[in-house]
Amino acid sequence: MDSPIQRYLTHIHEEIARIKDGEPASYIPALADVDPNNYGICLATVDGYVYEVGDTREEFTIQSISKPFTYGLALSDRGMAAVDEKIDVEPSGDAYNEISLAEGSGRPSNAMINAGALAATSLVKSAGPYSRSRRILNMFSDFAGRDLAVSERVYKSELAHGHRNKALAYLLRSFNIIETDPDPVVEDYFRQCSVLVNCRDLSIMAATLANSGTNPLTGEDLLEIGEVERVLSVMTTCGMYDDAGAWMSSVGMPAKSGVAGGILAVLPGQVGLAVYSPPLDAHGTSVRGIETCQRLSDDMELHFVRAGRTGKSAIRAGYDITDSPSGIRRTDEAADVLREHGHRAMVIELNGDLLFAGSESVVRELSALSDDVEHVILDLRRVDEVAAVALRMLADVREQLTAAARQLVLIDGEGTLAASFMEVDGEVPTLTTRSAAVEWSENQLIARYGGDLELPDAVRPSDSPALSSLSEDDAAALEQRMVPKTYDDGDVIRRVGQRFGGVFFIVSGKITTSVPGPNGTRVKLSTLSAGMTFGELALGSENRQETTVKAVGPVELMVLSADEILALEEDDARLALELWKALTRDAYIRVDQYLRETAVRIRD
Amino acid sequence: MDSPIQRYLTHIHEEIARIKDGEPASYIPALADVDPNNYGICLATVDGYVYEVGDTREEFTIQSISKPFTYGLALSDRGMAAVDEKIDVEPSGDAYNEISLAEGSGRPSNAMINAGALAATSLVKSAGPYSRSRRILNMFSDFAGRDLAVSERVYKSELAHGHRNKALAYLLRSFNIIETDPDPVVEDYFRQCSVLVNCRDLSIMAATLANSGTNPLTGEDLLEIGEVERVLSVMTTCGMYDDAGAWMSSVGMPAKSGVAGGILAVLPGQVGLAVYSPPLDAHGTSVRGIETCQRLSDDMELHFVRAGRTGKSAIRAGYDITDSPSGIRRTDEAADVLREHGHRAMVIELNGDLLFAGSESVVRELSALSDDVEHVILDLRRVDEVAAVALRMLADVREQLTAAARQLVLIDGEGTLAASFMEVDGEVPTLTTRSAAVEWSENQLIARYGGDLELPDAVRPSDSPALSSLSEDDAAALEQRMVPKTYDDGDVIRRVGQRFGGVFFIVSGKITTSVPGPNGTRVKLSTLSAGMTFGELALGSENRQETTVKAVGPVELMVLSADEILALEEDDARLALELWKALTRDAYIRVDQYLRETAVRIRD
Repeated sequence: MDSPIQRYLTHIHEEIARIKDGEPASYIPALADVDPNNYGICLATVDGYVYEVGDTREEFTIQSISKPFTYGLALSDRGMAAVDEKIDVEPSGDAYNEISLAEGSGRPSNAMINAGALAATSLVKSAGPYSRSRRILNMFSDFAGRDLAVSERVYKSELAHGHRNKALAYLLRSFNIIETDPDPVVEDYFRQCSVLVNCRDLSIMAATLANSGTNPLTGEDLLEIGEVERVLSVMTTCGMYDDAGAWMSSVGMPAKSGVAGGILAVLPGQVGLAVYSPPLDAHGTSVRGIETCQRLSDDMELHFVRAGRTGKSAIRAGYDITDSPSGIRRTDEAADVLREHGHRAMVIELNGDLLFAGSESVVRELSALSDDVEHVILDLRRVDEVAAVALRMLADVREQLTAAARQLVLIDGEGTLAASFMEVDGEVPTLTTRSAAVEWSENQLIARYGGDLELPDAVRPSDSPALSSLSEDDAAALEQRMVPKTYDDGDVIRRVGQRFGGVFFIVSGKITTSVPGPNGTRVKLSTLSAGMTFGELALGSENRQETTVKAVGPVELMVLSADEILALEEDDARLALELWKALTRDAYIRVDQYLRETAVRIRD
Repeated sequence: MDSPIQRYLTHIHEEIARIKDGEPASYIPALADVDPNNYGICLATVDGYVYEVGDTREEFTIQSISKPFTYGLALSDRGMAAVDEKIDVEPSGDAYNEISLAEGSGRPSNAMINAGALAATSLVKSAGPYSRSRRILNMFSDFAGRDLAVSERVYKSELAHGHRNKALAYLLRSFNIIETDPDPVVEDYFRQCSVLVNCRDLSIMAATLANSGTNPLTGEDLLEIGEVERVLSVMTTCGMYDDAGAWMSSVGMPAKSGVAGGILAVLPGQVGLAVYSPPLDAHGTSVRGIETCQRLSDDMELHFVRAGRTGKSAIRAGYDITDSPSGIRRTDEAADVLREHGHRAMVIELNGDLLFAGSESVVRELSALSDDVEHVILDLRRVDEVAAVALRMLADVREQLTAAARQLVLIDGEGTLAASFMEVDGEVPTLTTRSAAVEWSENQLIARYGGDLELPDAVRPSDSPALSSLSEDDAAALEQRMVPKTYDDGDVIRRVGQRFGGVFFIVSGKITTSVPGPNGTRVKLSTLSAGMTFGELALGSENRQETTVKAVGPVELMVLSADEILALEEDDARLALELWKALTRDAYIRVDQYLRETAVRIRD
């Protein structure tokens, strides 16, 4: 199947290629000598996929698009404060080659005009065997994800005609904005402007900025988020020179253009866009480049105001556990305790990204909980990204809960948040399913409000929920037919593919069940403890064991084997009937549990 | 429990209150006469919740914060093109009261400086009984969600001292930027600047812009998204006058300040922020206001570059249906067909918001599907927001699938996407659970590749999967004990709370099961068809029916009643034993199905 995005890009490429306005830059011969029909569009996603249409592998010089990257390198080398001392962050309202230095201090308005860019180049350090210009080239290569080179021809031509920039550099030196010999600064600046890139390179460079400074192809972290924030902010207000306002209104993405016909635009968190087409408008920006960015922003809703929409609430559902009990059978007394006190445990299901707005809705919900609520069970299984601010807020919430002798419990299948949470603030009980978390809270409530009701460490099969519908005598008779087994921590009790081996009653200890995941991983399904049974599931899958069952710590079992069940059917048909009735009932309790697990969807 | 956000705001309020720099505006006596210690912070979410600290109900005049709203009203009254003719969108780089008119045309640089604001006021229409200034006041009131009033004292004082603005208005008239008598324009402008608001009002006005133009308190749509986009774009580049660059770098939110000490900032999709504190800096902006916005942006990650992060991929899992079959038992022949052709149906699970990036990853995945794949099952149950661009892309995908004789199937519990999808492009098969969707596709595959294998319209109980482990004779003997029943479309077959009534075999037709949802709604759980059974679930919930079962179209059942099962246990213990064994097996097939439904989580 065609990608609709690919087809869309091909379509607008065809349309916009018809625009023949503008002229390629001609201030140096090396630039004038270019095919004005060259036209490429690349759209790179933050996971490194690139859509390409047209002349996307044609090389051209990066020119002013070098400025944000060198500025980023200067910020990274010297720190924000030292760079700010030399270069301001205000739009000049002037063209790119205006002098625009502050009266008195000589500080350039921003790093996107030539004066500020020269200052930024002067701030890049040499390091070890690498000269300043080598480090700049390396950094551009890291952003592009391939080794770039300098066009010596363009470089020499720029240098030969670069009187104005040389004048600027000396002026900056006179104000001590450039603190070293201006000649090599101008040379390195022209070298950085003469780096050869293609449209695809630019899109990856843009996507790296969109991806918080991490190159999506190589995974290399090239800038800190604070530096990326700064670079994109300056691009927002100053990147398009005196066209910044119209650009922000019509395109709404931080962007930078170069006189060789390149242009890149960044939608933070989503995409990097690059266009190459040499004919320029009066501002020195690619005519087809502007048209392409405007069309894409409109049609694909890339304007930052539209793209900023996020789900209004991260809360999917909230309910107390009496609405959705664990399904574990309890004694009548324990069930009474839960009926009376179950409202003290609340489940809150979250989803989406926990950035500011999402986290806010969560802490608001938690802050408004009735004083009765002692257990807060956060279901995080549908949460994607967790921002630092969310971690801080949740850590704060947890501290307050703890101070008020209230308990936070997490349901977190993949354990990612639980892990970072633990680093912040010590361990939080974390379970992989809702039923397990609710059971955990139920046990706590029974222990607290059940008086002398004890939750036993060991449960005889005859007392287990699975056999609770049988008479005492019948249950005892079945127990007679069971064989005890013990296991140590990590022992495999049942393997995938084994035949139905009977019903396994957990007397004490815990077991986990898991299934094979992709690439040799394992997906944990559940943790079972004393009183619970396993092994029956094989009855539902052509008598084949489908999960691996492992001991967690020492485990004691009683096993009613498949053979023994067959023998029982021969010896005592009535008891066998009772057993199967009990097993059917027990199975439907599980079905009911799953049904509750998937059906509770009480959106506000 | 305290809200950590409330505590955080109280904390920074306390800290920043200590800053005593700056002076309240004093160019008119009516403004100078104010307590410089007044200081309030309000943070309003896009669902209308407001955090308030300090002097948030103290009234003051809105001043220049009126400008973006009047500009919005002008855009809405006259359309983008007509307004653009009169007012440009470029930052002037100058202070707010600079003349900044374009040479020749006299067009003001933007609507945030006084010249542009006067032009915007002149463009607002009078309508019906409402004068221009009344309409402006009404619009501000609609944004604030309460009736606002004009301070006549400040208005008169402004008017008495407003010589410069009067000069500006006449200058604009001379260029024909203002086409009417300038005197009433100046009066209406001063009236709009003299509207009394409090900090809370401003935060709601900001949240309305953050919420795409819909007031989160009243639900009223006040501006189109395109107008909001334009207003926020101009605020981004021009809202903070000559401080725009530093503001964007350090705060990163479109904003506007007023000389009475108010300031508002907008994070699209997330929050509106407002601060009130009269002492101003040299730019005419509240000193504590700037400090507060910077602190909040840093600590809460509100900078648009950070806040723009979204989940990298909307795809949670992708697998073909042989990895996760419906669990419906098939004849051996049908099972063979599915083993061989099951890879032709793919399930793709999505989550999060479908904005550009999310939609892109989905269409990319779909575009890359092997040509073998004939059924694409999109699981949309975890999708939150769906942007228009996503709908367009999915519609395009569907069109291409249809053209290639391939089938799109949706799993969409709440049916929201399915509904808007249908409007766009006709009906798409939509089911509420994965099992049901997979079963649907399995049936299609069997019909296509099974040769003369027919999916029967009617299934005798003795041929049903539930009894498939029994011998033919045993199954026939059980069928002898069943009673036929028929129902019409919409008939309730089982009600919540009824006692276990036996096992219901569907011979022909379909039934749905549902449970009561919140506020009198119903949550649909599943649709069952010929060959399937129901009623056994009551065994798992203390013999009580937990779902409502309704006929969809005419339905024929065979019922093995609870009483008949008891009688069977008396009469024929062996057959009863076989029945219960079969029921246990059948129950565990369902458990296994649910386990698969929840366990398939193959993240890429």
